[in-house]
Amino acid sequence: MKDKEFYNHISQYIDLDIARFSEISDFFEEVKVGKKKLVYEPSEKCNKIFYTAKGCLNLYFIDDRGMERTIQFSIENWWIGDFLAFYNQSPTNFYIKSIEASKLLSITYDNYEKLLQKYPKLESYFRQTYQIAYGAFQFRMMHMFKFSKEELYFCFTDHFPSFAERVPQYLIASYLGLTPEYVSEIRAKIRS
Amino acid sequence: MKDKEFYNHISQYIDLDIARFSEISDFFEEVKVGKKKLVYEPSEKCNKIFYTAKGCLNLYFIDDRGMERTIQFSIENWWIGDFLAFYNQSPTNFYIKSIEASKLLSITYDNYEKLLQKYPKLESYFRQTYQIAYGAFQFRMMHMFKFSKEELYFCFTDHFPSFAERVPQYLIASYLGLTPEYVSEIRAKIRS
Repeated sequence: MKDKEFYNHISQYIDLDIARFSEISDFFEEVKVGKKKLVYEPSEKCNKIFYTAKGCLNLYFIDDRGMERTIQFSIENWWIGDFLAFYNQSPTNFYIKSIEASKLLSITYDNYEKLLQKYPKLESYFRQTYQIAYGAFQFRMMHMFKFSKEELYFCFTDHFPSFAERVPQYLIASYLGLTPEYVSEIRAKIRS
Repeated sequence: MKDKEFYNHISQYIDLDIARFSEISDFFEEVKVGKKKLVYEPSEKCNKIFYTAKGCLNLYFIDDRGMERTIQFSIENWWIGDFLAFYNQSPTNFYIKSIEASKLLSITYDNYEKLLQKYPKLESYFRQTYQIAYGAFQFRMMHMFKFSKEELYFCFTDHFPSFAERVPQYLIASYLGLTPEYVSEIRAKIRS
């Protein structure tokens, strides 16, 4: 078995026999990376998604000015990838990089399809995972519309204090659509 | 059977016997509304999601200044609702209103759970639906970071011309996080 935590995580969503899990985990490949390593980069066909077993990563694209813009983070028990491009087997513009040393379980498109065919119970696990992730994005969009830049920053650090400690400020800025300079300014303001 | 189009839509994602569909459709309630009618409003427990069989609707919240801010639209064959609050059976802040006269199929939380228990094949249908919707949100986030306000407006109207025709300008503005005045300005600029 590749990861007991992964089994525990899936078991929160569906009933899964541990013997069955051992077969399931064979569809995944374990990927260990150090800090600040590129895990995935833009390609003609997005053929992988990743489960974060340990660590912290971000999914980003590079804008016209060469800036890395973070679409989302992933910590333990979250999935990361370009889910539309993966579904359509189309090109992706997204990079994935480790923020901390991380352990991932990657799955290819072919293995994902085979896995769901062979273990249809996992459809429910992924359905719940995507339903939550989609709903969380709706919630995030509300926050982006609702709050000023300053409020957005404090809302993030207040709601996810342990997360904000793990992620460098310039990446939080990137995720919130703020400049690193702006984040420095508001942090200086609360210290003064 | 409540809606042949709904059957055709589901059949694009999973193999489904038409006789079986007849039983499935009993879990849904048909809702017909005229133009500009409130279909759902904030509540202590989000207990419904909606499939758009016909028409066009928007999901929005009301900000501190009393402005309606559109999180998303739904047209034929899309689902609309607060998917996280529905999953958690928690309060929702979102309203749903019809933009055109619309026909929806609504499902309660209890029926949704029973439906998935009884027809686990539908887990795959919803898994795909949410995977696509989640991925589309990632893509939208990229656009919001990548483009200027003006580019965002033209990107939207260029990519979804038929959609832009159905939706009033002030709602497109609301969806893109722009003011209606700003959209009027850039529209006047291209006409001049």
